[in-house]
Amino acid sequence: LNPIYAEMPVTVFEHMSGLARTLGAINLGQGFPDTPPPAALTAAAMRAMETRSQQYPPSMGLPELRDAVAAFYAREQGLNLTREQVVVTSGATEAIAAAILAVVGVGDEVLLFSPAYDAYAPLVRRAGGVPVFIPLAPPSWGYDEAAIRTAITPRTRALILNDPLNPTGSVASAADLALLTRIACEHDLVAICDEVWEAVRFDGRSHRSLLSEPGMAERTIKIGSAGKIFGATGWKVGWMVGDAALAAVLAKAHQFLTFTTPPMLQWAAAEGLADPAITAALHTEWSASRSVLMGGLAAAGFKVLESAATWFACIDLPASGIALDDRTFSERAVREAGIASIPLSALWEGEGGPTTIVRLCHCKPSAMLEDAVARFSAWR
Amino acid sequence: LNPIYAEMPVTVFEHMSGLARTLGAINLGQGFPDTPPPAALTAAAMRAMETRSQQYPPSMGLPELRDAVAAFYAREQGLNLTREQVVVTSGATEAIAAAILAVVGVGDEVLLFSPAYDAYAPLVRRAGGVPVFIPLAPPSWGYDEAAIRTAITPRTRALILNDPLNPTGSVASAADLALLTRIACEHDLVAICDEVWEAVRFDGRSHRSLLSEPGMAERTIKIGSAGKIFGATGWKVGWMVGDAALAAVLAKAHQFLTFTTPPMLQWAAAEGLADPAITAALHTEWSASRSVLMGGLAAAGFKVLESAATWFACIDLPASGIALDDRTFSERAVREAGIASIPLSALWEGEGGPTTIVRLCHCKPSAMLEDAVARFSAWR
Ligand SMILES: CSCCC(=O)C(=O)O
Ligand SMILES: CSCCC(=O)C(=O)O
Repeated sequence: LNPIYAEMPVTVFEHMSGLARTLGAINLGQGFPDTPPPAALTAAAMRAMETRSQQYPPSMGLPELRDAVAAFYAREQGLNLTREQVVVTSGATEAIAAAILAVVGVGDEVLLFSPAYDAYAPLVRRAGGVPVFIPLAPPSWGYDEAAIRTAITPRTRALILNDPLNPTGSVASAADLALLTRIACEHDLVAICDEVWEAVRFDGRSHRSLLSEPGMAERTIKIGSAGKIFGATGWKVGWMVGDAALAAVLAKAHQFLTFTTPPMLQWAAAEGLADPAITAALHTEWSASRSVLMGGLAAAGFKVLESAATWFACIDLPASGIALDDRTFSERAVREAGIASIPLSALWEGEGGPTTIVRLCHCKPSAMLEDAVARFSAWR
Repeated sequence: LNPIYAEMPVTVFEHMSGLARTLGAINLGQGFPDTPPPAALTAAAMRAMETRSQQYPPSMGLPELRDAVAAFYAREQGLNLTREQVVVTSGATEAIAAAILAVVGVGDEVLLFSPAYDAYAPLVRRAGGVPVFIPLAPPSWGYDEAAIRTAITPRTRALILNDPLNPTGSVASAADLALLTRIACEHDLVAICDEVWEAVRFDGRSHRSLLSEPGMAERTIKIGSAGKIFGATGWKVGWMVGDAALAAVLAKAHQFLTFTTPPMLQWAAAEGLADPAITAALHTEWSASRSVLMGGLAAAGFKVLESAATWFACIDLPASGIALDDRTFSERAVREAGIASIPLSALWEGEGGPTTIVRLCHCKPSAMLEDAVARFSAWR
């Protein structure tokens, strides 16, 4: 069997969620809300099951959803897209896989920034490519020009940008985007942009995609997720956006990964994207629960790192008076305090990353978050 | 971009369904029923949306569905499986992709039998492997020992068996299975068995998997599909079955292709698999519509090839008095007779396949099938 998979552990998310289930712990590890998706979306999906075909939709997705994605990005990010530029996928993970399989060939080097979502590197390797890790450093997690330039070789083919960034919750600055644009254009790189957290921002700004930068439109694959936008992580509806020629090729990779995505969930996602009230209500809810966790942790003397986006808050263990490394903390906290978390170093490949930062998911009911803070305080 | 995708046409199924939609033709091309899935399944999915979590299920699938798959195969095929041997995927296409990406490495040769479902060869190539096509010949579409032995080299790593076979509707004989077993064991091959049509048989026999043959349990990946079993092609719920060690590795490939599959559809599939009355009712319905198409075509003087399974019937053009090759027939029939079909040669790679066989889908309402027969007769 392929050693890429044969020697791979299960993901840290599965591992921690499995422990949380087995031990009955509060699960602040894997990122998902504990509440159902918005009632309007569930109702829309049920209505679609009753009134629409449940057979194969077109492989690129329902035209109505592709239009809705384009309209959503016009409204939220000022992008000017057509249906032809949108390929619906069975979640953003599939979009990442399709993009990497479509872009990366044998020997191609791909720039990744650590910390990095755990799917990127194995997929680059499975595509025949070589992941080249460039570390980001706290507290800003900014992009360092010298480090990037040193990493580039004539074999560099693509970069993968996750912005906003999971697990740190940081957002690339305008200067970061300009830097990455310059580098991508100079070296003719494809930019695979995992922007699944674009709608989960708490800094009052609207998301700006690398796709919008001058010269990037024809070399950027922008990946989005209805699961993140609507807090419906089990729905597995995502998409890739790129210029029409690029999207047509991405669609080929997609057609042989899942072919298509359940239509009732596509119809519901289309309805949800068209209604700004739905995302606004979620934003209000998530802002509130974020404040509960971050405020509670700070009040209890934990050092919470600055962040601007995502469902996650990171705590700095030594600055919180905790003398454990992050993996030990997570393994012990789930067993002893009954709280699952994600050690940041589980999302780090390459040399010398931080080993004292732990990620907690905050899109949870307030009572659960308050309980978690109390447990952490008592256990520490 | 990777030339495997950049130079690939859209699938013949997308092409023909697109033409059917545009032209308003009867779509007997892509295989799907025109009716909804069984009402009990839709109700089960809706109930799950109301009562169950819609967040991430475990990556390997809901334990309840994995158990239901094992129980279904115990009941229907006498297999003795445990939950650990079942990995749920987002449709059988994802299962095929995960299996190929997990098994095939750079330079590995993979035996494929023509005609072959169109996903296999591109995925083998994208995995770095080399598809080696072995032709099957009508009317039996049997497996030829000499041809297989000639195709094997020291680089041969796997074979892909589609049984029952799409597009022909033929089923491997006991002798075929014994031959493939002998060859796989002698040459230490992995067998990727696409058995999505296992429940769609009209020869009165129950399906026998290569997995059941002596020596095959530890080298076989058996792929199944709730979409085919329940006539719910948009649901995209499938699975891979293999021994526990193999399944654990397949799960790694799966976790980075889609991670997981919508839980409401998993719950519903689990309910459906547990109720033999549901599959029995579908079988009765599909047998009847199959007879309508095959009987109607025969009565109208078309030569329908023998078949035992799948939603498809093949017609032999010259023996039906039609002097067109299959691709010309399909392109003209959709425009001139208003009927979409699939030319068998679109599913053929390698030298010298038949070019005079056309596939029609028969799991359609009788009135539609009668209309199709009338149109074909008038147009011919
Ligand atoms: C696909 S499981 C991981 C979910 C997620 O985005 C996270 O927790 O970081
Ligand atoms: C995924 S589209 C093809 C569906 C199918 O199995 C067929 O028509 O052969």
